[in-house]
Amino acid sequence: MSADSITAGLLVIGDEILSGRTKDVNIGATAEFCTDLGIELTEVRVVSDDTDAIVEAVNALRRRYTYVFTTGGIGPTHDDITADAIAKAFGVALPINPEARAMLEARWKQTGTEVNEARLRMARIPEGATLIVNSVSAAPGFRIGNVHVMAGVPVIMKAMLEAIAPTLEGGRKVQSVTIKAAVGEGTLGSPLAALQDRFPDVKMGSYPQMGKDRVMTELVLRSADLDRLNLAAGEVRQMVTQVHLREGVALPDDEVY
Amino acid sequence: MSADSITAGLLVIGDEILSGRTKDVNIGATAEFCTDLGIELTEVRVVSDDTDAIVEAVNALRRRYTYVFTTGGIGPTHDDITADAIAKAFGVALPINPEARAMLEARWKQTGTEVNEARLRMARIPEGATLIVNSVSAAPGFRIGNVHVMAGVPVIMKAMLEAIAPTLEGGRKVQSVTIKAAVGEGTLGSPLAALQDRFPDVKMGSYPQMGKDRVMTELVLRSADLDRLNLAAGEVRQMVTQVHLREGVALPDDEVY
Repeated sequence: MSADSITAGLLVIGDEILSGRTKDVNIGATAEFCTDLGIELTEVRVVSDDTDAIVEAVNALRRRYTYVFTTGGIGPTHDDITADAIAKAFGVALPINPEARAMLEARWKQTGTEVNEARLRMARIPEGATLIVNSVSAAPGFRIGNVHVMAGVPVIMKAMLEAIAPTLEGGRKVQSVTIKAAVGEGTLGSPLAALQDRFPDVKMGSYPQMGKDRVMTELVLRSADLDRLNLAAGEVRQMVTQVHLREGVALPDDEVY
Repeated sequence: MSADSITAGLLVIGDEILSGRTKDVNIGATAEFCTDLGIELTEVRVVSDDTDAIVEAVNALRRRYTYVFTTGGIGPTHDDITADAIAKAFGVALPINPEARAMLEARWKQTGTEVNEARLRMARIPEGATLIVNSVSAAPGFRIGNVHVMAGVPVIMKAMLEAIAPTLEGGRKVQSVTIKAAVGEGTLGSPLAALQDRFPDVKMGSYPQMGKDRVMTELVLRSADLDRLNLAAGEVRQMVTQVHLREGVALPDDEVY
């Protein structure tokens, strides 16, 4: 990580993820969102609907990364305790926010929904926070310090990420090149390590692909410096070609130059 | 969490998850695995292929939970540094393990695969660890202390979880009951909170379902005590029925008793 890189931590909150009942998709969506903006998602944590666990995780992450994103636990039921935990983490009160209440009541008027105590929980926003608009179901998220508190329902989470995108400072966008090989990663490991040593500014990842009847490998090169990335990609392609010649294996169709 | 509960932490290791290039499925699979065994998966962390990040996370998790599972970073390439990081976290050496080498060489002999330096990286196992058999591709995982180090490729991760299952002590299996409602969770929030107060030993979760043209809610009750679970489920069903009557909304088809 370079000194000037913009980093992020993601906190996923919810018993349903940890029990396996709900399969998370917000990690992947947030990861893509960060990569597109040139923000380096550096760590993800998943914790249960437990105040102490949320407080500890959010305090650890917000001190460490440029931005923290949280997803889950901002609905109207008793197990939605994220706002309470964030207020506790920041040592601030959690009053009904007039702007949030107005947003909710406007939507409820449209839909003929009764105002009740459970629903009004969603208007409780930590003191000093600014609201994150929820275009889907009106109940807002909020930003306090560098922490962005968003919904767990994937479509709402995505809408909220879009809403905050213009407020985030992006880093240099990282570009990537993918190079396919029709040999296993064990065959590529040593020459790839030698190239990684020569290009410390180009991150080289190796990912095995278990095909139906043969092993494939995808090498992914990533760098914020496009010239260095292209130079490294050329060298890796040459190495991959030589290994295929040596092994007597044809290159994958899309890697014949 | 009760004092006698068996807990687990999961550490997912890999840049490809944090960049969004690969969508994780091991969190969901491990969560289901734990739930089936009566182990409470309490926390998940995702970190990059960075030695310090792995060491810090594994040390935090292994002190806190009964079991730690890791997935990713045990292949043959330079970016596979999990074994190195685990050895560092435990302060032990990382020699070539004769048993692991024999497993690998037996497979390589079958497949006519050359033994090389990169592939032999996969036989490096921290001192004092025991091997976890890999029925898919031979390269073993390992257990050291309460930490189980496994592969990132989902099919291999699943096979390794099956391999270690008989060695894990399960807790009381948690049972669950799902109750559907054709009203939003804001309508159910207050009466559900009152029932949660009456049944502290039955965890009640509320999950919004955004249907095509109307809002649904799923209430999920979980407990290790089947009698209390059934008692609570009866009360929740009664509450849900009353709310539907009051709102003039039909119960979902599968919730008509």
